[in-house]
Amino acid sequence: MTDWNHMTLAGFQRALNNEELAPLDWWRACRKRIDALDPTLQAWEYLAPEPAITARNDEPPGPPLFGVPVGIKDIIDTVRLPTSWGTRGYHRVDGTDMDAAIVTLLTRLGALPMGKTVSTEYAYFQPSKTRNPHDPTRTPGGSSSGSAAAVAAGMVPVALGTQTVGSIIRPASYCGVVGFKPTHGTLSVAGLKALAPSLDTLGWFTRHLGDTRTLFTALTGSEPVAARERLDGVRVGLCQVPSTPTPSPEAVTALQDAADRMTALGAQLSPIDMGASFDELVTHQQVILAYEAARALASDRHRFEASMSPALIALLDEGQAIPLTRYWRSRQAADRARLVLSQYLTDRCDVLLAPSAPGVAPQSLETTGDPVYSRVWTLMGAPCVNLPLYWTPQGLPVGVQLIADRYQDPRLLSIASALMA
Amino acid sequence: MTDWNHMTLAGFQRALNNEELAPLDWWRACRKRIDALDPTLQAWEYLAPEPAITARNDEPPGPPLFGVPVGIKDIIDTVRLPTSWGTRGYHRVDGTDMDAAIVTLLTRLGALPMGKTVSTEYAYFQPSKTRNPHDPTRTPGGSSSGSAAAVAAGMVPVALGTQTVGSIIRPASYCGVVGFKPTHGTLSVAGLKALAPSLDTLGWFTRHLGDTRTLFTALTGSEPVAARERLDGVRVGLCQVPSTPTPSPEAVTALQDAADRMTALGAQLSPIDMGASFDELVTHQQVILAYEAARALASDRHRFEASMSPALIALLDEGQAIPLTRYWRSRQAADRARLVLSQYLTDRCDVLLAPSAPGVAPQSLETTGDPVYSRVWTLMGAPCVNLPLYWTPQGLPVGVQLIADRYQDPRLLSIASALMA
Repeated sequence: MTDWNHMTLAGFQRALNNEELAPLDWWRACRKRIDALDPTLQAWEYLAPEPAITARNDEPPGPPLFGVPVGIKDIIDTVRLPTSWGTRGYHRVDGTDMDAAIVTLLTRLGALPMGKTVSTEYAYFQPSKTRNPHDPTRTPGGSSSGSAAAVAAGMVPVALGTQTVGSIIRPASYCGVVGFKPTHGTLSVAGLKALAPSLDTLGWFTRHLGDTRTLFTALTGSEPVAARERLDGVRVGLCQVPSTPTPSPEAVTALQDAADRMTALGAQLSPIDMGASFDELVTHQQVILAYEAARALASDRHRFEASMSPALIALLDEGQAIPLTRYWRSRQAADRARLVLSQYLTDRCDVLLAPSAPGVAPQSLETTGDPVYSRVWTLMGAPCVNLPLYWTPQGLPVGVQLIADRYQDPRLLSIASALMA
Repeated sequence: MTDWNHMTLAGFQRALNNEELAPLDWWRACRKRIDALDPTLQAWEYLAPEPAITARNDEPPGPPLFGVPVGIKDIIDTVRLPTSWGTRGYHRVDGTDMDAAIVTLLTRLGALPMGKTVSTEYAYFQPSKTRNPHDPTRTPGGSSSGSAAAVAAGMVPVALGTQTVGSIIRPASYCGVVGFKPTHGTLSVAGLKALAPSLDTLGWFTRHLGDTRTLFTALTGSEPVAARERLDGVRVGLCQVPSTPTPSPEAVTALQDAADRMTALGAQLSPIDMGASFDELVTHQQVILAYEAARALASDRHRFEASMSPALIALLDEGQAIPLTRYWRSRQAADRARLVLSQYLTDRCDVLLAPSAPGVAPQSLETTGDPVYSRVWTLMGAPCVNLPLYWTPQGLPVGVQLIADRYQDPRLLSIASALMA
């Protein structure tokens, strides 16, 4: 019997090539698991009918994601499935005019859309219905709630997410999966609902770091990212972020655990303290988020204001009140900080190691948790990956993130591979 | 009888407040002119029915664009009007699900959409049907062909345009109107068809520089931009751009004329020669354009490839073949160049003066002319304004552009106001 939870994308292609598995096997196993678990977890907004493929048309190796079931976050346009943008139905389009670019790309690579995963409202903070697979009384995090939960629960091996504040890294940490946010602008966001375009970044979740490397290569058409076993010569900045909120003991332990593992693999760790500049950048991120969201969602508010959550209305009001000059100052501050970070990540270290979230997933479905530890890295446009290395004695995951300079995604994933080997 | 071509946005509001004019007067005068001229000029793709307003609901001063007819470039989503994205019909949506954010904003400010203006195919290079109002055998430029022509012909006082390469500045130059491209990211592009998101910028055309100042204030909710009569103390870098193509004698004359005017107004001019770095940035702009377009239009190509122009297919093929690392190198080069430009525009001058186009509008409807003189400034994200200062003896306009550092839009428009006074 196939162990689907340990199946990798590369292993599946090998099994297809050897005719040990059939193209729809993974899809059907996933759907069976969804049927069993989703009444509790509620990770899915809409499910696709079974695809009509039976065999690959071409010789091996074929398209690299052939037969791979993929969850599509519900802020991503799809022709054949409804799209609600996480609004819980107050805006529902029963099939958009055109697939988002990423859906066309995935389909061309052979992937099989499994359905639309639950998002928070417009990928902002208002939680939807999804529960954490490790404890259904806890949030899976957000905004990519359904994608993180679905991958963690073995419902799909891959799901798309987006991050504007901390919407990939935080749910990945809470659900114990790999979550990857590439350099801002790496994948096209055409056909995605915009929240704050200068921050919005398309990424994904997997259970295996190797699958994230495979996806990076496939989706960007890049050279394969080399796996590595050791970290000799790798310089790691250990982020003592930030004063508030105080990280929980679990988050401190998770960070120390990851630091110890990196040291044991040969890396050189040195602490860095971003101090007050971190807090300032958190503020600038909020200014940019609120300003851009108020303008990007102007037509949505015009139509749907009465149905919008108080949290979203508060964000849009906050953004509407921000003067252009204030917004521009925050953008300039971010431009300057990107330079400083780039210089730091050239001169002094190769990657940063930092908490992904303040602790385990909060025991609540009324919040998706605090994204504070991702705000600055999203603002920097930097690639970030959550690594599910540490689990509490009660069985809850607490991730850490590695962060590299913009355009260093392959190096980031290569370094991460040693830790997850 | 009202002289509508000399009417300004501010003058119209005063006339409304004094009850010298009625809210629909401008709209009706514009529609009459469209009916007379558009069979020749073909600036419009779709026309709106007459709006149902008769009087303002509020006391003076009321919304700042009340009753102002506006042309909407046909890559901008509209609920009540079809949208074809400049495709000449192979992709036509008869009213999108939601207005673009800018349409909601304009409507809230009291403006009256007159219709959709003709765009080139996906706002790239394939010309559509519009002709130059000053000579119908010539191109109006593109991609904002209909918007520039409609404003120049007095069909509307304001029309929206977008610029990814040179799609506002060049048609403004060819049609002899003010064209303004704000700092990248100033106005939300939600609901606009993306071509290359890190370059795509929403701007507009007017006949009067003062109207562009009014629009900037209204659309961004900013403080009014002060007009000025003199340029004493203003440092102007006179751009000796670039080696190819050689600017025509008319473009050289237009640039010298503008330089003389600025000197006469008290500005200090000094020549700058960007030399080889300009050519390199032109190449980087093309890499970023092609890479992003190939990915943003992936779903469009999937559906409509057979109907796409050879020029568009060539761009998409070019972009598809560019490796991620090459694209990232061009983005990094652009990041560095933005810094150099910012430093230059802090230490050595306040604005740059440069040609808008290599000469008068080409006598052809098979091309929209060469956008080379805008590529670098669009890549820099800098605000640019075309000033229709010079006209050839045969009556054709040749514009010049002023360029400021990012986030210096108010200063740019203030300096421009002295030249256009």
